Amino acid sequence: MSDTDALLFANEMFYRAFADRDITVMSEIWAEDAPCTCLHPGWHPLEGREEILQSWHNIFNGPEPPRIDCVAPVARIIGESGIVICYEKIGMDYLVATNLFVRRGHVWMLIHHQSGPVTSPPEKETEERRKPDAIN
Amino acid sequence: MSDTDALLFANEMFYRAFADRDITVMSEIWAEDAPCTCLHPGWHPLEGREEILQSWHNIFNGPEPPRIDCVAPVARIIGESGIVICYEKIGMDYLVATNLFVRRGHVWMLIHHQSGPVTSPPEKETEERRKPDAIN
Repeated sequence: MSDTDALLFANEMFYRAFADRDITVMSEIWAEDAPCTCLHPGWHPLEGREEILQSWHNIFNGPEPPRIDCVAPVARIIGESGIVICYEKIGMDYLVATNLFVRRGHVWMLIHHQSGPVTSPPEKETEERRKPDAIN
Repeated sequence: MSDTDALLFANEMFYRAFADRDITVMSEIWAEDAPCTCLHPGWHPLEGREEILQSWHNIFNGPEPPRIDCVAPVARIIGESGIVICYEKIGMDYLVATNLFVRRGHVWMLIHHQSGPVTSPPEKETEERRKPDAIN
């Protein structure tokens, strides 16, 4: 698996944990040895694993947990950092996200997430072009 | 000037270029030797310097260019990457932003920006605590 595939895999695992409402997997995705921040749409910044994981726990246990899919992820690596830009499809709505990872051996750990709404869906052509071939 | 101060200075320059509607300074802030992305609030991702600088040109020349201030920036460095999380005060509204930089010698160059609205202002105490002492 290439570095970029590993980065896209880490990003996909984040969204699987989100879709499956799996707080155990979500806790394994966020880095333990680096400061973490999370900017949920409309929220103030959350800082640190404890505060961030508590927010995911609350989201997963909320009255109407959203179904989410990651669409059209695009990854790039800058030294020991990896950034993935992707769309998030939640029901009929789309958001766009920044996910920032740090390299730890062959694994990428999440240290920052921001997502916010976009006013229209991504172009289908773009979506298909960007879909990674293999992330498993 | 420490690495962190230089990173906060680069972030401040970005907002000064924005506030001053100065496309020349804005073009000097974005990296020329790395892929760049920009996620304006509600927009689809923009890729590459040309597309990004065209968007800033359009924003600066729009009918009602917004007045903007950077509030409560918090910086952290991960190897050759630097991330700044801050609020953006636009008129009476607040947004929150992720700004990602890469180190080039003693200078930090912007490679990614995302901002999106928050539903309430930052807490004043937090804002003052986080205000950098010296960024000039």
